[in-house]
Amino acid sequence: MDTADLGLPVTVPSTALFTDQYELTMLQAALKAGTAGRHSVFEVFTRRLPNGRRYGVVAGTGRVLDAVENFRFDEGVLRFLREKAVVDEETLDWLAGYRFSGDIWGYPEGEVYFPGSPVMRVEGSFAECVLLETVILSILNHDSAIAAAASRMSSAAGGRPLIEMGARRTHELAAVAASRAAYIGGFSSTSDLAAGFRYNIPTVGTSAHAFTLLHDTERDAFRAQVDSLGAGTTLLVDTYDVTEAVRAAVEVAGPELGAVRIDSGDLLLVAHRVRQQLDELGARDTKIVVTSDLDEYAIASLAAAPVDAYGVGTQLVTGSGHPTASMVYKLVARAESAEPGAPLTAVAKKSTGGKASVGGRKWAARRLDAYGVAEAEVIGTGEVPPELAERQLLVPLVRGGEVVAREPLDVVRDRHAAARAGLPLSATQLSRGEPVLPTEYAYGPSGS
Amino acid sequence: MDTADLGLPVTVPSTALFTDQYELTMLQAALKAGTAGRHSVFEVFTRRLPNGRRYGVVAGTGRVLDAVENFRFDEGVLRFLREKAVVDEETLDWLAGYRFSGDIWGYPEGEVYFPGSPVMRVEGSFAECVLLETVILSILNHDSAIAAAASRMSSAAGGRPLIEMGARRTHELAAVAASRAAYIGGFSSTSDLAAGFRYNIPTVGTSAHAFTLLHDTERDAFRAQVDSLGAGTTLLVDTYDVTEAVRAAVEVAGPELGAVRIDSGDLLLVAHRVRQQLDELGARDTKIVVTSDLDEYAIASLAAAPVDAYGVGTQLVTGSGHPTASMVYKLVARAESAEPGAPLTAVAKKSTGGKASVGGRKWAARRLDAYGVAEAEVIGTGEVPPELAERQLLVPLVRGGEVVAREPLDVVRDRHAAARAGLPLSATQLSRGEPVLPTEYAYGPSGS
Repeated sequence: MDTADLGLPVTVPSTALFTDQYELTMLQAALKAGTAGRHSVFEVFTRRLPNGRRYGVVAGTGRVLDAVENFRFDEGVLRFLREKAVVDEETLDWLAGYRFSGDIWGYPEGEVYFPGSPVMRVEGSFAECVLLETVILSILNHDSAIAAAASRMSSAAGGRPLIEMGARRTHELAAVAASRAAYIGGFSSTSDLAAGFRYNIPTVGTSAHAFTLLHDTERDAFRAQVDSLGAGTTLLVDTYDVTEAVRAAVEVAGPELGAVRIDSGDLLLVAHRVRQQLDELGARDTKIVVTSDLDEYAIASLAAAPVDAYGVGTQLVTGSGHPTASMVYKLVARAESAEPGAPLTAVAKKSTGGKASVGGRKWAARRLDAYGVAEAEVIGTGEVPPELAERQLLVPLVRGGEVVAREPLDVVRDRHAAARAGLPLSATQLSRGEPVLPTEYAYGPSGS
Repeated sequence: MDTADLGLPVTVPSTALFTDQYELTMLQAALKAGTAGRHSVFEVFTRRLPNGRRYGVVAGTGRVLDAVENFRFDEGVLRFLREKAVVDEETLDWLAGYRFSGDIWGYPEGEVYFPGSPVMRVEGSFAECVLLETVILSILNHDSAIAAAASRMSSAAGGRPLIEMGARRTHELAAVAASRAAYIGGFSSTSDLAAGFRYNIPTVGTSAHAFTLLHDTERDAFRAQVDSLGAGTTLLVDTYDVTEAVRAAVEVAGPELGAVRIDSGDLLLVAHRVRQQLDELGARDTKIVVTSDLDEYAIASLAAAPVDAYGVGTQLVTGSGHPTASMVYKLVARAESAEPGAPLTAVAKKSTGGKASVGGRKWAARRLDAYGVAEAEVIGTGEVPPELAERQLLVPLVRGGEVVAREPLDVVRDRHAAARAGLPLSATQLSRGEPVLPTEYAYGPSGS
């Protein structure tokens, strides 16, 4: 593939350095010990949802597939590793030929997940799988955290459109991924041109306070904007006095004025006043957009207000209090030797100090109740019970190193909406609570 | 400059799309209205520090300079903007020739800041300055948030080294910037190879639980690691039973064992036990590294424990509860016309709804008390009082479009240590409190 498709406006020649050093030193030691070729199963899961959240949202899968496909150690990368003596020459030789040749399964992007859900499973030699830990977790932890916040906000907004405008509050490239994740979670558009360019997400935006301040009067600014962008534009009305601004806005643009934006103050109160004023001025179709430090709670509190769209920045790109998911990438099974076909053994950290995990190559299925509503996340090893066979969650993403599951972002967005709609109604309560589905295990702790 | 220097392993052909759409629509309207050429002064500042924090840390300046230098609208970007009808042809023509030709002043990177500090000032035509809002804020808001958390952690750690290992908890490129910001804030090294590659930050890492689980026994794993990486390596001792693991580790590596790492459990208790056991086994020089969900409070609580180094992940890259700074980019003064030399007028949002700001092109200085300790952040317009002339904080970063202030990261890191050391002692208290310096204004609210 053309690496220019990876993350424009940024070209990523290789994703192989999005890696923690220990992955390479483990590789070196395993190569020397003869254990690097043991067939291994790594699993991505989380032990818990963020405090009080009812469900998680898988996001970033498409970006993971891009990253795996481009995970190559080119000459510049190898030179760096040699100069810094990160690993020895034998390991560098091995890395020079690296190309992931294994299999990846996962929850399809946009699906919901719960504690213990095996959201991704990476299978191949220990050597080829261990290297992917950091890049896979970076992408899934970031994007899933944003998508989960976006999903709550889109529930809270009902059918009203949500605009993602958080680019200025996060790393400039994290912002592009955040727009993508927000779109999956139900947002309609973004202010971020890079996200429009890269992912074809609709972009929006008209003016800031600076534009009003640039002009001699607010009325001059409105006239300049309407002259250039048309009466259908959105005028920002809170630079000086909102009431005067709304009057000037309708005088300048006429009742065809597209929208007014309110970016400060008591939004509930101001929205009601502005709606009344717009109606009195005959601008009954002029919409009201609000954009000041919104989160899902503020959005919910405006449900009865005459608001037509929400712009969300900081709280979206910071995951509304939970800027990262806590997914981990753990070895859950490996072959007893490096021989082809050697039997697999389930493995798991067993320390009494915490962070214990469950070994074994897992399947997962979502059990429905008699009304077709999800009632449990069932996770197991071995054979899938026949009654759950049709409800399995893991799908093939990469087979023998080839990506087999690329899909348009709108498919992912629709999938998320459907998955959320299939959960019990309490899923979309904003109040803190337990995960809306219990996780059930269909095997003993040492099963494989 | 070679764009390959910008963010390797990622090449950024242009930073011009790290832009919110409204910057381009404002440009279009201002071009048409004849106001785009008005000389303008934009200021980056924050109205408040994160709740309870005593000081902020300026970070990202070097990345801002790279971004400004590469802010160009190439053919691919222009084609996108044309296809999506973001702006009209006249504006596209203007963008095709864009190159920032103004001046940028700022607090030097690594300096501390307070509410109201004009951490950066961008000056030129409205048109050329308004476009830089998003990319400048993205970088400063992200990097400064991480550096502030890093600075608190490094205070808490005393002289003990801190390892940045949060790549897996944040966007893969945000991680690289986070390593850089952590280094500025006082961290010693990173697990992130991309950060080593791009910024020459020392990289570290040896092994994860997966390496132990790959092998038939823990002892086999330790032997494999020591065989390959030498006795000076760090062995991870909490996969099964810590006491047994420490015994095996010293048996395999001998008393020359470099370090053991503990990644779970009650670190205070376990560190004491492991230290005692290591000493009894004769491994008196073997160090102890701890790495489980640490933040500045956990680090401080381990001050009396026999710990030699801390590895910090999640809480570092998420700003320890504050993943973004709240810096804004506001027009504070602009010329009365587009004529060269037209007089400047201070401007500011005046809405009663909140978010009001102070207009005017500002200077800033840090006043010292009789003992040479900082006692106030003084901000003003007009002439700098003679007694503060030597204590001014803003330095030139870009003159006439040319970057004039590139500097090595170690200089920035040392500057931060010195700036923090110049604050009152209460600056490094971890408890919540007011900013350690008051902000004093040396002008009336309408001064320019």
